[in-house]
Amino acid sequence: MQQLVVEIPHRQYPIFVAEGLLADTQKLRELLLARIQGRQVAIITNKVVAPLYLDALLEALDGLQVDVMQMDDGEAEKNLQVYQQTMDFLLAARHNRSTCLIALGGGVVGDLCGFVAATFQRGVDFVQIPTTLLAQVDSSVGGKTAVNHPQGKNMIGAFHQPVAVLADTATLGTLPSREYAAGLAEVVKYGVIVDAAFFEFLEQHSDDLLAKDGAVLSQVILRCCAIKAEVVSADERESGRRAILNYGHTFGHGIEKLCGYGQWLHGEAVAIGMVMAARLSVAVAGLDESVVMRLTALLRRLGLPTALDQASRKVATIEAMMDVMGLDKKVVDGRLRFIVASQLGQVQVRDDIDAAVVRNVLAQC
Amino acid sequence: MQQLVVEIPHRQYPIFVAEGLLADTQKLRELLLARIQGRQVAIITNKVVAPLYLDALLEALDGLQVDVMQMDDGEAEKNLQVYQQTMDFLLAARHNRSTCLIALGGGVVGDLCGFVAATFQRGVDFVQIPTTLLAQVDSSVGGKTAVNHPQGKNMIGAFHQPVAVLADTATLGTLPSREYAAGLAEVVKYGVIVDAAFFEFLEQHSDDLLAKDGAVLSQVILRCCAIKAEVVSADERESGRRAILNYGHTFGHGIEKLCGYGQWLHGEAVAIGMVMAARLSVAVAGLDESVVMRLTALLRRLGLPTALDQASRKVATIEAMMDVMGLDKKVVDGRLRFIVASQLGQVQVRDDIDAAVVRNVLAQC
Repeated sequence: MQQLVVEIPHRQYPIFVAEGLLADTQKLRELLLARIQGRQVAIITNKVVAPLYLDALLEALDGLQVDVMQMDDGEAEKNLQVYQQTMDFLLAARHNRSTCLIALGGGVVGDLCGFVAATFQRGVDFVQIPTTLLAQVDSSVGGKTAVNHPQGKNMIGAFHQPVAVLADTATLGTLPSREYAAGLAEVVKYGVIVDAAFFEFLEQHSDDLLAKDGAVLSQVILRCCAIKAEVVSADERESGRRAILNYGHTFGHGIEKLCGYGQWLHGEAVAIGMVMAARLSVAVAGLDESVVMRLTALLRRLGLPTALDQASRKVATIEAMMDVMGLDKKVVDGRLRFIVASQLGQVQVRDDIDAAVVRNVLAQC
Repeated sequence: MQQLVVEIPHRQYPIFVAEGLLADTQKLRELLLARIQGRQVAIITNKVVAPLYLDALLEALDGLQVDVMQMDDGEAEKNLQVYQQTMDFLLAARHNRSTCLIALGGGVVGDLCGFVAATFQRGVDFVQIPTTLLAQVDSSVGGKTAVNHPQGKNMIGAFHQPVAVLADTATLGTLPSREYAAGLAEVVKYGVIVDAAFFEFLEQHSDDLLAKDGAVLSQVILRCCAIKAEVVSADERESGRRAILNYGHTFGHGIEKLCGYGQWLHGEAVAIGMVMAARLSVAVAGLDESVVMRLTALLRRLGLPTALDQASRKVATIEAMMDVMGLDKKVVDGRLRFIVASQLGQVQVRDDIDAAVVRNVLAQC
């Protein structure tokens, strides 16, 4: 088992990465009981993940009061209504302030459960057990929790850190290949924004990644978490450096919103968004055209889309994209903010980009 | 104008207390503009307060994008539905992360607006302009924000500190006398839990308080805020010392919930709860019976109830109270937690009190 300790201001928490952790009842129980303060636990999971891993988790928690809520699967469930249902569920089962929530599932379960943990009785502990690659490399570091609003993704939420993250790479074996690829989009992002050598590593190991090689995956997950932790530690609240993690996301969120959550997976929208951001980088930050080619090639190799398909282009028109991005959180007083790369592994936050240039880039994609 | 600076871990914010502050456009504008970062402001207020002070506030904010949401009046509005409506309102008006919310009203407006500020786009600034005595002495210090749930008060919320609090004692002139008295209940509480001399001051100045004497009020508000700030600074998250602020509240919340929010004002329920807690203190902490008499006399003098009336007794029965208190947040792993006084100005947190003793006290009241 490998471990990374995330240092955040005035606190820290561990991320454990191991193949087969959920099947190792003894080890799982030991890790969990060391972090659960009271006698109450509430597991938030969904109907796809529960049949696979819930029994193992329940066995590891034997002897505690454990209540389970199973959400429906999908991004559409990450809303205020399910948030409220989760609050109803916790109060009906008489959970109190010393309860510990466990998010067993992907990013949707983690974000929703985290926001419930942030706000149930003004904040309770929670543990993340991410079962998708996206959640393992992205959602489990940074403390961002949220639900969506019809007006935009993650519009309602809070910063709330887990007390621990337990990532079992074996869970990726059961992940549908499209979802797996979506997680790889965020992996590629870390290479683009911070680490050119890591980007090359991914280019060289694309076959291993497609084969879900355990050793390569562990290495990749830890590297991504370490990069994100380093960026986040410096800036818990996204005023400065943290914004670079949003590379590709301003476009990506626009695509998701216009096409309807569920049409594109988050990682797929981010993949397309990263290509758009790369083209924008060529236009305004002097990025070499060859990087756009390498990025596009790597994403394609990993099974990801790099442009909108014809149907999406009909809803995510240039004007619709411009309009919807104006509502994105990454806006400072009416100015659009973009993350652009000057070279592989080096990005900058820019809010001086002319709308006409953005329109041009959208027209190209 | 008098000022108190509240020191919280890693931050601080000012409380300004002045008579006629809302009528002093120049001063008000200066204080607000020094704290508003962006160009967007959203005022959350209610339909009773708005006709009295909204115009003055709008004048002071001239030149900014200002949007106003007017809630209905009353504790029943402090719920997830109004929370969601407020989110809808902010997003429809395209407020972004650098917006600043202003809570203009009493505790309900402050708690709801604060919770929205805590969770809108994962947290934005907010200013409190409390217009009730209760909000001025209690809600504006401590960073507690919340909405109610059918299962209990303040069950959903977060800790989120305002960037400033502006208290105008002149607003108390228009406050209905019942609400004014309810605020005095929390004032009396500070004497009981921390400061016997302040309790005596209140006994001696009860006439001035009933006459809403400006000088006495300013002194009282600042003293209450200072006591609360001192308690809260030591313990932002209520694990230890902060719990003493809940003196009378375990009983009080039970009463409010059983009789229906709106039947008793919060301060009235707390007044009755404080008498119950005093009787419990006599039973388990050696409090002298004479203190119960002084407390009861002072509360009555200030126009507050000290026992349930006949109608309330029918719903807030002993068994119903025991049951509903079991759901109160101040419960550690199934044990009821009570704040009891050993003498005036000295309290302790106890979770070893036998249910039978609590039942006995309820039977006495």
